[in-house]
Amino acid sequence: MSTPMLGRKPMTKEQYERVLPPLRNALLAAQKRMQDEKSFALAVVVTGRPTAGRSETVNEFLEWLDPKHIRVHALDKLRKVSRTWPVMWRYWNTLPARGQIAFYFMGWYEDYTSPALTQPKKSQRHSERTLERIRQFEALLTRNGVRVLKMHLTIDAKLERERIRELRKSKLTRWRVTGEERWLARHHDRATKVTQQGIEATSRPGLEWNLIDGTDPQSRSFAAGTALLDALEKGIRKSAANKAPKPKPVSSKRRPFPTSPPEGRVEDDFYDEELERLRGRFALLARRGKFARHGAVLAFEGMDAAGKGGAIRRLTSALDARQYNVIPVSAPTPEELSYPYLWRFWRHIPQRGEISIFDRTWYGRVLVERVRGFAAAEDWQRAYGEINEFEQELTEHGLIVHKFWLSVSKEEQLRRFEERDKDELKSYKVDPQDWVNRKLYDQYQLAAHEMIARTDTEHAPWTVVEADDKKYARLKVLRTACEQIEQRLG
Amino acid sequence: MSTPMLGRKPMTKEQYERVLPPLRNALLAAQKRMQDEKSFALAVVVTGRPTAGRSETVNEFLEWLDPKHIRVHALDKLRKVSRTWPVMWRYWNTLPARGQIAFYFMGWYEDYTSPALTQPKKSQRHSERTLERIRQFEALLTRNGVRVLKMHLTIDAKLERERIRELRKSKLTRWRVTGEERWLARHHDRATKVTQQGIEATSRPGLEWNLIDGTDPQSRSFAAGTALLDALEKGIRKSAANKAPKPKPVSSKRRPFPTSPPEGRVEDDFYDEELERLRGRFALLARRGKFARHGAVLAFEGMDAAGKGGAIRRLTSALDARQYNVIPVSAPTPEELSYPYLWRFWRHIPQRGEISIFDRTWYGRVLVERVRGFAAAEDWQRAYGEINEFEQELTEHGLIVHKFWLSVSKEEQLRRFEERDKDELKSYKVDPQDWVNRKLYDQYQLAAHEMIARTDTEHAPWTVVEADDKKYARLKVLRTACEQIEQRLG
Repeated sequence: MSTPMLGRKPMTKEQYERVLPPLRNALLAAQKRMQDEKSFALAVVVTGRPTAGRSETVNEFLEWLDPKHIRVHALDKLRKVSRTWPVMWRYWNTLPARGQIAFYFMGWYEDYTSPALTQPKKSQRHSERTLERIRQFEALLTRNGVRVLKMHLTIDAKLERERIRELRKSKLTRWRVTGEERWLARHHDRATKVTQQGIEATSRPGLEWNLIDGTDPQSRSFAAGTALLDALEKGIRKSAANKAPKPKPVSSKRRPFPTSPPEGRVEDDFYDEELERLRGRFALLARRGKFARHGAVLAFEGMDAAGKGGAIRRLTSALDARQYNVIPVSAPTPEELSYPYLWRFWRHIPQRGEISIFDRTWYGRVLVERVRGFAAAEDWQRAYGEINEFEQELTEHGLIVHKFWLSVSKEEQLRRFEERDKDELKSYKVDPQDWVNRKLYDQYQLAAHEMIARTDTEHAPWTVVEADDKKYARLKVLRTACEQIEQRLG
Repeated sequence: MSTPMLGRKPMTKEQYERVLPPLRNALLAAQKRMQDEKSFALAVVVTGRPTAGRSETVNEFLEWLDPKHIRVHALDKLRKVSRTWPVMWRYWNTLPARGQIAFYFMGWYEDYTSPALTQPKKSQRHSERTLERIRQFEALLTRNGVRVLKMHLTIDAKLERERIRELRKSKLTRWRVTGEERWLARHHDRATKVTQQGIEATSRPGLEWNLIDGTDPQSRSFAAGTALLDALEKGIRKSAANKAPKPKPVSSKRRPFPTSPPEGRVEDDFYDEELERLRGRFALLARRGKFARHGAVLAFEGMDAAGKGGAIRRLTSALDARQYNVIPVSAPTPEELSYPYLWRFWRHIPQRGEISIFDRTWYGRVLVERVRGFAAAEDWQRAYGEINEFEQELTEHGLIVHKFWLSVSKEEQLRRFEERDKDELKSYKVDPQDWVNRKLYDQYQLAAHEMIARTDTEHAPWTVVEADDKKYARLKVLRTACEQIEQRLG
């Protein structure tokens, strides 16, 4: 951890007034450049004791910078609305876009400090998992265009007590002291220890904490401003130097996925009856009281014309339209591109008791973006880990996550393309891009193999569905979805 | 109300198979054109008995159209998260952008039907208010680029009972019948009456209901598809013919707002002490238990350099950063322009217990957009009523809404511009547009007069703040905010 801001001598008023204007000028200039270039975003986490100047620091930043491109987020751990979604949902939903700055008051650290302070024994495992989640999250942001600047404001126990006493003396300032502050002051040592552990556990190269001494307001302001300027300038320099490496060529060969039903074609009569039976089973599962405490994410991937849409409609026709959402995923819009790539999926994560069905997913990163070269090799290669972490987040919250790869043969795909071309009603379904993708069929297969090998986890498994027979595929999808939900509900 | 879809003869399978393909072709073509032109959005509300084919209709639309530009929303009235925000928040947050279609399962009518059915006596006034709100909302959407298509599926009592009996007979289909459906079937007449009243109360020119007979599935599908096609084609024709009328010239003259403090300049000592006292009062108010059941929206308008930012910072410095959000409002982005103009403000409405402070607001419509001619006369002229309705929505939910007009004289404004120009740190604050706006000072004054005259309501009042003396203005803002909150909390 970097501690360059600690132990400085107090700043005189004259010193402060001399050094501040150039700092503010530099900050404004850096912010302007950042806005113009839109090459990175900045998330600033400000933690520390309230009496060390937490609020004051954020307020000063708002005064120094152009506030039009800044958001301040104060996320209350107790907010009911947040418990409806996975913990990280609220951070994803407030991320700054490239060119923008967001200040997070306590940020995602409150998820760690609060329980660690108030229930120190009970929460050992919870704390460790929370710190791991924070490390993963910050690493993911850093690698995806969001710089993270962390500042922790410190103050010693004696001065903290003095400040509180001073404020409480006068009617005019007594309101400034909350119950939380007094609690923290009474438990200064414990709070310091917990914080220290959190800081040590989350300091990584490029993600160091800035410890800022809150003893003297002028030194504090100047130190905080300097740290912010440094982060902005590093962001600008880094993005100027940034060149995307070429993707590695896809080379090795693997056995293709099965595409035909192992038991042969499904008969029409059997299909009709079995479909109705499975839909009933699925509908009843989704209506079970226990399901309301969970919810599900069903993800569909597969080559064009593999039958994703048809399989999805068989699922949804069993559900009340109030309970599900189908999310068709296309190429990202310019707005979506200005955020980390998982951002646009977090927006569609279901509440408890609901079902989100993704027609194409976050796996686009390691499929189309990899094969077509839309993502740099280092970007899609690290995506496996990021995706596993993302799905773990969801399942830890209680969501049931299951993924389907609809496997269609090259021959059957061609047959379906031609059929669509002939059928005026389906012709909108064939995109010129589909033919380009078809030429890359083998590379897609390879990418899919690697994807499944690396992301078929216990908490979020894949099912490969032999999709040359549409009826077989639809039944298998429904049956698997039922089995998975039954298993998780117990 | 239009009833062309009722009383048709059942359609034979042959008839259906003959008429369907041309209908689907026409629907796809219309959807494509709508997407390309992006001149309007379509919100389709589907209500009616479940056994009349509500779900089936929405599912068919998804099959017939290109689903990539469609969203289906099923809004559960019981959802906790919704009670955190005003009722209409969830509809605003799911509106389709121009070029897109959204289906609303029961839509905003569930807010009316549910209480009217289950608590018929208690809710008379509530029902009337809800219907009024629906009328206003639909009118606002229609005038702001969102076409509204309403379909109600009917079925007679006998057939409804038969269908339910039939479905319940077999294990395979029993799951299709929910408790709600059985309740509705038992109370067929009452439900029909309530629905009928709702339909009559909300049928307006251009917002007629399509009553669709659900007796025969094929007639139903065809009727629903025809109604959808009609809505799409009307939307396309209308937008092609649409020409914005020229804004009326601003002419009449009014007495200017006061700009100097009535009691003379505020002395520094008094200011410091009074500011601290008021901040304490404000902070304590925001922390009162009762405030957690309310929340506040504080809106700031005024000419450039009127001191909005400074006044806002004096308010926020009294608050815990977790409790408030400052929302700086700039010119709308292209994304924002593809929605009705109030959409971007709904997104920032606070939850209960929180405070949203708007630095410029939805009044831009009747200020800058009027004066500069960015909005057509008919658009800004009807905005007064729409804004009053919007603010009433907020206050009915319990939010405290107060609006400040910071009134600065032409001379003082010039002095501040020049001061900013000299001060390097503040130079980013002066935009070339500010000088253009300054030339239109008198027209802004006139627009502001009319704005306050038309929107100074009991539930959401304006306070004109004499802002030539910054210190006086800041104290008056803080004092007024305190008084208003105290008054509302009782």
